[in-house]
Amino acid sequence: MQVGFIGVGRMGRVMVQSLLNAGHQVRAWDVTPEAVDAVVAHGAEKAANANEASWGDAVISMLPNDEAMRGVFLSSKFLQAESKPPVHINMATASVQCANELAEAHIEAGMQYIAAPVFGRPEMAAERNLNIMAAGDSATIELVQPLFDAIGKKTWRVGPTPSQANVVKLAGNLMVAAMIEAMAETAALGKGYDIDPATSLEIIVKSLFDVPIYRIYAGLVANGPYEPPGFDLKLALKDARLMLAAGETVNVPLPFMSVIRDNYLDALAHGDGAKDWSVFSRVAMRRAELE
Amino acid sequence: MQVGFIGVGRMGRVMVQSLLNAGHQVRAWDVTPEAVDAVVAHGAEKAANANEASWGDAVISMLPNDEAMRGVFLSSKFLQAESKPPVHINMATASVQCANELAEAHIEAGMQYIAAPVFGRPEMAAERNLNIMAAGDSATIELVQPLFDAIGKKTWRVGPTPSQANVVKLAGNLMVAAMIEAMAETAALGKGYDIDPATSLEIIVKSLFDVPIYRIYAGLVANGPYEPPGFDLKLALKDARLMLAAGETVNVPLPFMSVIRDNYLDALAHGDGAKDWSVFSRVAMRRAELE
Amino acid sequence: MQVGFIGVGRMGRVMVQSLLNAGHQVRAWDVTPEAVDAVVAHGAEKAANANEASWGDAVISMLPNDEAMRGVFLSSKFLQAESKPPVHINMATASVQCANELAEAHIEAGMQYIAAPVFGRPEMAAERNLNIMAAGDSATIELVQPLFDAIGKKTWRVGPTPSQANVVKLAGNLMVAAMIEAMAETAALGKGYDIDPATSLEIIVKSLFDVPIYRIYAGLVANGPYEPPGFDLKLALKDARLMLAAGETVNVPLPFMSVIRDNYLDALAHGDGAKDWSVFSRVAMRRAELE
Amino acid sequence: MQVGFIGVGRMGRVMVQSLLNAGHQVRAWDVTPEAVDAVVAHGAEKAANANEASWGDAVISMLPNDEAMRGVFLSSKFLQAESKPPVHINMATASVQCANELAEAHIEAGMQYIAAPVFGRPEMAAERNLNIMAAGDSATIELVQPLFDAIGKKTWRVGPTPSQANVVKLAGNLMVAAMIEAMAETAALGKGYDIDPATSLEIIVKSLFDVPIYRIYAGLVANGPYEPPGFDLKLALKDARLMLAAGETVNVPLPFMSVIRDNYLDALAHGDGAKDWSVFSRVAMRRAELE
Repeated sequence: MQVGFIGVGRMGRVMVQSLLNAGHQVRAWDVTPEAVDAVVAHGAEKAANANEASWGDAVISMLPNDEAMRGVFLSSKFLQAESKPPVHINMATASVQCANELAEAHIEAGMQYIAAPVFGRPEMAAERNLNIMAAGDSATIELVQPLFDAIGKKTWRVGPTPSQANVVKLAGNLMVAAMIEAMAETAALGKGYDIDPATSLEIIVKSLFDVPIYRIYAGLVANGPYEPPGFDLKLALKDARLMLAAGETVNVPLPFMSVIRDNYLDALAHGDGAKDWSVFSRVAMRRAELE
Repeated sequence: MQVGFIGVGRMGRVMVQSLLNAGHQVRAWDVTPEAVDAVVAHGAEKAANANEASWGDAVISMLPNDEAMRGVFLSSKFLQAESKPPVHINMATASVQCANELAEAHIEAGMQYIAAPVFGRPEMAAERNLNIMAAGDSATIELVQPLFDAIGKKTWRVGPTPSQANVVKLAGNLMVAAMIEAMAETAALGKGYDIDPATSLEIIVKSLFDVPIYRIYAGLVANGPYEPPGFDLKLALKDARLMLAAGETVNVPLPFMSVIRDNYLDALAHGDGAKDWSVFSRVAMRRAELE
Repeated sequence: MQVGFIGVGRMGRVMVQSLLNAGHQVRAWDVTPEAVDAVVAHGAEKAANANEASWGDAVISMLPNDEAMRGVFLSSKFLQAESKPPVHINMATASVQCANELAEAHIEAGMQYIAAPVFGRPEMAAERNLNIMAAGDSATIELVQPLFDAIGKKTWRVGPTPSQANVVKLAGNLMVAAMIEAMAETAALGKGYDIDPATSLEIIVKSLFDVPIYRIYAGLVANGPYEPPGFDLKLALKDARLMLAAGETVNVPLPFMSVIRDNYLDALAHGDGAKDWSVFSRVAMRRAELE
Repeated sequence: MQVGFIGVGRMGRVMVQSLLNAGHQVRAWDVTPEAVDAVVAHGAEKAANANEASWGDAVISMLPNDEAMRGVFLSSKFLQAESKPPVHINMATASVQCANELAEAHIEAGMQYIAAPVFGRPEMAAERNLNIMAAGDSATIELVQPLFDAIGKKTWRVGPTPSQANVVKLAGNLMVAAMIEAMAETAALGKGYDIDPATSLEIIVKSLFDVPIYRIYAGLVANGPYEPPGFDLKLALKDARLMLAAGETVNVPLPFMSVIRDNYLDALAHGDGAKDWSVFSRVAMRRAELE
């Protein structure tokens, strides 16, 4: 298939590679020219702007945040272009509100909008080990399924409203954050009884929760280092804000998320904003004076 | 080896079977004669009381709660017997305080005390699929390792103080409870956006947390039924009390556990005390008026 | 003094009356013409628009929310007028962020900006029983003190940065909300022991907290009715959002506010959004199945 | 009237003085002989033990905690005495469970049991400025009302079950603790915006909550010192335990109390257990790195 790709940063660039590997033709654009050059070196075509990347069978986007998405897709001429592909697949983590605004604007402009955020980090993307959550018009999803097959290992169909996929993505982040806080409390409780956090977490994780995400974060909670960050705490706070806002819109209290948010702020106040977000696990230790 | 076994209820009976299967000689006692008869039918010897079961190379116990343990081991003549084995292995979930009392009383009576609680339920015990956490004198643990090998698949050495094993067991329960609450909040958030809980949980669990304990509880959170209970909510509240007390002793705040405890009470107030403890996941739905 | 007054709703109209009573000359504007007519009938002059009200020695404003303030003062020609008074006194409850934006824009436009939110409701304003918190340039506050003396019973000087007054106003609301939640938990705990909420709250309030705000809200918590609302729950949620955002900006966790916000959402989910905000006290009763 | 008085510590001694001042005849006992000597010097008679103090028209007690009460009234011969007064008035802060045990044992022994805890500290007792909450048989309360009139300024009738008075007392403590936490969050939020805690708290307290208890604790929150303690943090934690247990018995979640308890532990971990309990207000500052 012929696709445009907008946003070829750490994740986007790997996805473009997967599409090229599967034989698709890709035309890429990014606000950073060097990022475009990098994918062009691997076989993509260069687009001079977002509208030039909006061509062929579909345009895929992977921008870092709501502001960037609103800037490129809503405040520009992107949707007013005369010639554009029938569908835009947004694979980034967006807020529910932004997803709804985008869906509405695309429909008005006569374009399908599919939200398809992913679980997984760049190294997993490189192994085509991503889980994709797709929501929106099901016939359209069917049409672009080959693109998802090229990028991820599994595509989940969430429902007919694009923002539903963003809700599930946010909820997944909530569950990961809750896992970290639970490990932090476990580590602190054990430490209070002279049990090394690496020991208490290894026993519990290997006994009950023996999956990569637990093993990776148990290591971080027990030993750090929190630098360089895989995902920094300031961004995690932004995610927390999106989650709490998503809950607020539909009157769903999220008491765990409230506890986590307060601990993020505690860690930020202690200068850890640029570290890996798992650094907030130190709050439990610090409150118990066990550091 | 020659061992006594005190407490042959749902878990104890399966452990006795494992010991017998491995060629050990077992003499069993329980406050309920029928329970003893059941294991005698499979090859165990019958003890007329706890003291008769306290013989041979070691006595193992698996009693349901602190009260029973204090009744059988502290308020009786158990520790005053002239002839008794060199070690008592307590495999039940005890509070930290009870474990400390027991350890002290045993040492005074000239007997080693090993705490060795397990992760796993009767059906896992039947498949020798238990994780055993052993704490206490390491030379003693070495001596009784063949018994652990007969019963479980893996023995973790936690540390030199018996109650440390109980702390890790309690912390493991905290992590399971936190997993359930995180799934409950996820299910409610998704439901607020018309996503079926079975869908949102399946996507996240299969994508990120694909282990039996997540799959089992995701099913319960999404669909129930909560009856008959695997472990009822009233017992979960007792565990929560032990955990919070363990934290209090060493000045460790456990904010997640506090949220969970409040939700247990909410579920108890709504008549769910005799149901499976995962029923507390309905609190998130009820608070958001999504039931 | 000669003053303009923008926003003559329930609070603003009473403030205008106080200014007129003290002999000041007032020119008023409001987006609702009938509101202006009402104060004109009591001796104010009519302004045809916000800019006409921006005259004399000072312009005072009392608009309902950030959006209205941004609309009238930032997105309009208000600050570009050639002739305008030396100072704008904003007495409304604004977010910290909005207060900062307004302060910056006024300084650029060569106008002093004083934030002066109040504690008190319309009936207290009518008795000149308001507490005014003023922040900004202290010489300017000195100049307009006669206006504050006409409107309130006491003016507090908070500090040199206008938004500081808004922070104290938000914190005051936090303390009132916390008072209500504490009474709600008290009422529920007592009810669990067959003590009528009116009894338990009267005893504690009269013994320890015998001030009007406690007496008024104790009555509401114990007996309702929550209609018509003095201040509705939807607005309270908006305030909660401003408070949590104010905390987030300076990395201050506010765990009480988080609990309160979750209870607001619970009450909103149960259909109480248009009722008096004290209705969120029913959450404690409902969770304990004591309604 | 002729009364016995058991427990003449800091509070009890002042109450005895009030009874003597009102013309009642008092026979006193305490585990500390010097404490008895002090009240004998002011006109009381000396009892050699608790049973000698159990005479006349009523015996009043004011012991420091559940353990002391159980020791003196349940584990001793106190209730088995042949000659004893018709009623025992317990004015101490007891747990609900202890109050229920005492009530039951007294009734079995043919003695009325009235729970009558107070709000107020020794200096307030000295000015007869106590609020008394009385619960139990109403005819009996009527009979001993002259004793309450001698000791306090107001007697509240809570209900027919003695422990109901203890519930209201615990709930009052919850409301005071919540007041302190709300002031702590206010102080931290303000400090984040360079507002001195003394300023932010004074404005809010004088504007909205102008009663002694707020003024006193606002001063402590803003400035300390937390030594010597009026009531130390370790005792406050014990009270928190009683409150949470009282809630647990009737399935009432107390989320504010859970937050407060976690902050107590944080303060205890930081070495503040022997300081005035209001020291836990520093947790909000410490978490925001504002100390």
